[in-house]
Amino acid sequence: MRKKVAVIMGSDSDFDVVKKAVLRLKAWNIPVEAHVMSAHRTPKAAANFAAAAAQNGFGVIIAAAGMAAHLAGVLAAHTTLPVIGIPIKSSTFDGLDALLATVQMPTGIPVATVAVNGAENAAILAAQMLALGDEELAKTLLDAKQDMIDKVREKDNKIMTEVEAL
Amino acid sequence: MRKKVAVIMGSDSDFDVVKKAVLRLKAWNIPVEAHVMSAHRTPKAAANFAAAAAQNGFGVIIAAAGMAAHLAGVLAAHTTLPVIGIPIKSSTFDGLDALLATVQMPTGIPVATVAVNGAENAAILAAQMLALGDEELAKTLLDAKQDMIDKVREKDNKIMTEVEAL
Amino acid sequence: MRKKVAVIMGSDSDFDVVKKAVLRLKAWNIPVEAHVMSAHRTPKAAANFAAAAAQNGFGVIIAAAGMAAHLAGVLAAHTTLPVIGIPIKSSTFDGLDALLATVQMPTGIPVATVAVNGAENAAILAAQMLALGDEELAKTLLDAKQDMIDKVREKDNKIMTEVEAL
Amino acid sequence: MRKKVAVIMGSDSDFDVVKKAVLRLKAWNIPVEAHVMSAHRTPKAAANFAAAAAQNGFGVIIAAAGMAAHLAGVLAAHTTLPVIGIPIKSSTFDGLDALLATVQMPTGIPVATVAVNGAENAAILAAQMLALGDEELAKTLLDAKQDMIDKVREKDNKIMTEVEAL
Amino acid sequence: MRKKVAVIMGSDSDFDVVKKAVLRLKAWNIPVEAHVMSAHRTPKAAANFAAAAAQNGFGVIIAAAGMAAHLAGVLAAHTTLPVIGIPIKSSTFDGLDALLATVQMPTGIPVATVAVNGAENAAILAAQMLALGDEELAKTLLDAKQDMIDKVREKDNKIMTEVEAL
Amino acid sequence: MRKKVAVIMGSDSDFDVVKKAVLRLKAWNIPVEAHVMSAHRTPKAAANFAAAAAQNGFGVIIAAAGMAAHLAGVLAAHTTLPVIGIPIKSSTFDGLDALLATVQMPTGIPVATVAVNGAENAAILAAQMLALGDEELAKTLLDAKQDMIDKVREKDNKIMTEVEAL
Amino acid sequence: MRKKVAVIMGSDSDFDVVKKAVLRLKAWNIPVEAHVMSAHRTPKAAANFAAAAAQNGFGVIIAAAGMAAHLAGVLAAHTTLPVIGIPIKSSTFDGLDALLATVQMPTGIPVATVAVNGAENAAILAAQMLALGDEELAKTLLDAKQDMIDKVREKDNKIMTEVEAL
Amino acid sequence: MRKKVAVIMGSDSDFDVVKKAVLRLKAWNIPVEAHVMSAHRTPKAAANFAAAAAQNGFGVIIAAAGMAAHLAGVLAAHTTLPVIGIPIKSSTFDGLDALLATVQMPTGIPVATVAVNGAENAAILAAQMLALGDEELAKTLLDAKQDMIDKVREKDNKIMTEVEAL
Repeated sequence: MRKKVAVIMGSDSDFDVVKKAVLRLKAWNIPVEAHVMSAHRTPKAAANFAAAAAQNGFGVIIAAAGMAAHLAGVLAAHTTLPVIGIPIKSSTFDGLDALLATVQMPTGIPVATVAVNGAENAAILAAQMLALGDEELAKTLLDAKQDMIDKVREKDNKIMTEVEAL
Repeated sequence: MRKKVAVIMGSDSDFDVVKKAVLRLKAWNIPVEAHVMSAHRTPKAAANFAAAAAQNGFGVIIAAAGMAAHLAGVLAAHTTLPVIGIPIKSSTFDGLDALLATVQMPTGIPVATVAVNGAENAAILAAQMLALGDEELAKTLLDAKQDMIDKVREKDNKIMTEVEAL
Repeated sequence: MRKKVAVIMGSDSDFDVVKKAVLRLKAWNIPVEAHVMSAHRTPKAAANFAAAAAQNGFGVIIAAAGMAAHLAGVLAAHTTLPVIGIPIKSSTFDGLDALLATVQMPTGIPVATVAVNGAENAAILAAQMLALGDEELAKTLLDAKQDMIDKVREKDNKIMTEVEAL
Repeated sequence: MRKKVAVIMGSDSDFDVVKKAVLRLKAWNIPVEAHVMSAHRTPKAAANFAAAAAQNGFGVIIAAAGMAAHLAGVLAAHTTLPVIGIPIKSSTFDGLDALLATVQMPTGIPVATVAVNGAENAAILAAQMLALGDEELAKTLLDAKQDMIDKVREKDNKIMTEVEAL
Repeated sequence: MRKKVAVIMGSDSDFDVVKKAVLRLKAWNIPVEAHVMSAHRTPKAAANFAAAAAQNGFGVIIAAAGMAAHLAGVLAAHTTLPVIGIPIKSSTFDGLDALLATVQMPTGIPVATVAVNGAENAAILAAQMLALGDEELAKTLLDAKQDMIDKVREKDNKIMTEVEAL
Repeated sequence: MRKKVAVIMGSDSDFDVVKKAVLRLKAWNIPVEAHVMSAHRTPKAAANFAAAAAQNGFGVIIAAAGMAAHLAGVLAAHTTLPVIGIPIKSSTFDGLDALLATVQMPTGIPVATVAVNGAENAAILAAQMLALGDEELAKTLLDAKQDMIDKVREKDNKIMTEVEAL
Repeated sequence: MRKKVAVIMGSDSDFDVVKKAVLRLKAWNIPVEAHVMSAHRTPKAAANFAAAAAQNGFGVIIAAAGMAAHLAGVLAAHTTLPVIGIPIKSSTFDGLDALLATVQMPTGIPVATVAVNGAENAAILAAQMLALGDEELAKTLLDAKQDMIDKVREKDNKIMTEVEAL
Repeated sequence: MRKKVAVIMGSDSDFDVVKKAVLRLKAWNIPVEAHVMSAHRTPKAAANFAAAAAQNGFGVIIAAAGMAAHLAGVLAAHTTLPVIGIPIKSSTFDGLDALLATVQMPTGIPVATVAVNGAENAAILAAQMLALGDEELAKTLLDAKQDMIDKVREKDNKIMTEVEAL
């Protein structure tokens, strides 16, 4: 049975972005649980969740937060599971505050950071980690990569035609 | 009896900067305790310290950290004492990462942030808070302000003389 | 009787942001006075206000300003009360100019800086300072912290349900 | 038998930083191979390496590069193994160019980015990924985390003593 | 017969910006071919295109991409034709990520970078390169420069009149 | 008779911003001439204008430009009149590119730079320069300063009332 | 008799940079007075100086300060003389904090900002302002401009020779 | 006979960086002329040089400048030859000011910008442009690319051996 992916967001207002990660994981039959937990508002809940995550069947934790985005770091502090951080763009600084607060972790406690608002990539990265020991999932990822190539080709054809007609 | 100020640093390498805060507080007879505690490496110690700080006689917590500086925020998450954050300049980004990670706190959990490496100002700010209910300390702060004025005047005289001689 | 909090804004256009600080303080029965004063347009009024603030019953000063946000610094220059600075986001630079102009104070004159547009946190921080000598207010802050935790839990439940239904 | 970790650097001048990742992996008995390959100077070698990495027994690829750091992204483009990117600080911009060029990947091709020059964390993250299916390695990581806690405690004691003596 | 200009974009969503380059080149009778190719999603197609571009009659390659904009660099890695990079502004960082990822190329593989979203200038720059061996095209460029001067003069007259009437 | 102020803009699209400078100068009876001239599109016109400005009765030149804002610098290169630069905010970088390109002039050729889009301040600064030898204008500026103070006071009263009613 | 130029610095540590302005002004026989005054440490002295500057025979004020550089703005708040701001580079942010704090002034109170550490240009700009009503000084500035041209030519010849010899 | 490349630098202090471009061009038998010319100090010389460059046998102009780097733009304003800009890192902002001032050109006047201090790449780019009509030079560039690949391979072997020995 596949390990679960936890998708934790610091605020329910992040759900619009984070939803894409959830949908992507579900589409690939990766069991997912989503929670609103805050490094600052509910620090104990976050710490407890992370500390028990491995025993509770989770393999990877995805954490999304904006501003002084401590969530991924705080979760990583309480687990040795890989933690993926999604910096969320909020009303100032275009997410630069969240990016630096997520990625600039001190030695010992890494956070695997993806692009600002990069929820779908967080899901793919989680899948890549789980696929290390899961042939079927590895196959799914290869197929998805091929689909992506095919879609770019279609767009290429469409643009070529459009340009010739200009 | 005065409440104590806790000076927490994320790494012992921050002590060169933080020492100035300790010395300033000691010079004003404000009881101070210093600790190395990390939001990421010793999260439980940090959480426990903050949760018990008020009962243990602390009035203000000063927290210094670099990079993805979560320390002040994590301490603030576990207490309603005022927490002062000192962003520490590390080897990249001139402390901008630490500044944003310290100051951009979400609603509900403020951190009183001072300048990058601004340890002395953190100590003065802590003293200003304690002085709200401490006439003697308030007087000390006024005297220190006057001393500062006198010192600038001396420097002014020195520069004026130097410039005339050019 | 509680000391008052002064909420000073550099321009009446900042009131939309600053209003949240006023409402928060009023809700907690902390006496508050609000003023429009400019470090540049009415520097004497600002200097006089700050110099007399302690005698006039104020315990904390909150200052909100945008662009080259000197207001908090100028007020801090004339008082030893703690001054809290709110950098206001204006039409350029997402408030980075205001943040740096507020937080990067020279040694001797600290400003307790909160997040860009972080008015509510400025009010909470002011309350935390006043609560150092005010058991009732300290209790209010603990209750507010618990409320916050409960609200996050509700949101967590809501999102969990929503995700399961996807 | 454990899967191997590939440590690819864009230039041999990155080896001073990258060496820490290699040493960390070797210390934990994780088989490692290191290469100098450039996204721009030897693009075919890089593409071929990534395309064949899974078949050649690699489980994770770590890529370190500075400036317009395309290396991690280019490797990720040719594999579905997880790719960890280390932005290298070069002579300008404190590594911000490398950080943005590494982390801001488009949807479909994630790079798990760590801090600027964060080589040791890249190694730990790689180990965390491999530990998902490797109980012994998972145990090693938990022990390392405890060691880290113990070391911070020692430093805490040292600083406390030093501060009391001031 | 004139050499062709290739206009490659990383995503079809860049076409709104890139279209201006295509139109400008067509207006000057410079043969142009446009493609959607991604450094990350279709890396082989991009590599093959660049490697064969000189033999296929192309003289200059224009590449437009956003975020971690590797496209121009990846094309430049596979050709010795001049490659012009257009950093595309996406939803975060105002195109700074794309600018740095495009311009900060390592020694050996230059990319001629123009302004963020500077598609028209990319086309003009391509024309200037081709005009080095094409007298007619050189004449066209001089005429266009004169047209530009005349248009600014018209606007100057318009504004002067408007200002006098204020 | 007063010397004239030249208001030069790099593009007619800057006129919305620049208009405020023109209106301010006209309101104070300072003769003003406005032109569209580009450092890059009509460099000769710009050079000739600046070189002849002193003889043509101008006392101060105001130059507004966006992006790689060379206009103020190019005018300053051809005159010893004081040149005031207004960095214009364009579609990227919030005017940071224009600010740096305007203010970071090499030794020998200063440009008096005002805030991004700070057209009114450019006009006031020009008036301050002209007022050095113009008692009447100096008086006008003092009156304007007093008006400004009065207006802030009115707003202060308005806000105080509004806050009491909350 | 020429009006004086005041050169005010926020700290005596700024004198190394500011000295160049003093020397330049003295070399042109422009009377200069230098002072150490701080917007934050000696705000009254600064306010009084600026308020009386016009009556005391000053024509222009130059103000140099680092970090949250309020000095130029505070002086400008108390005078209608033109105020020139020199942002001083301090130990963090390469002077960006000082630049933004100096240049981003609100409408009504302009500061003529020069480059970070641009002391010599501040002196030249002051001279250009004074030269508006001083034919002899205007002539001096034109001569200095010609000297500068001659010096660049000499360097051009030197480099040309050096390059031919490579 | 090959067209010449002009290498223009804004200050002789830029020669340390620019020298690499000169040496690279000479090594490939591309005729080169170097000059010190300043957009601000000797604007007429710069304008005249650019305006006559095509007639004087130049095919490409390389311009290197720091701070508010207007040089490349000013030269481009007076020619339709391709102009390559090298942003020079000076004492502040790590060359970001020069980068933005060089690359953010308005529509109509492109500058082909390379990395900060990227002199060697400027030379290679110039060679790539000239090679469009010069088979021998095109061959030289291909050979240089192969040499580069061989050198990376050597370094790869060296590092592999070093890592195995750790």
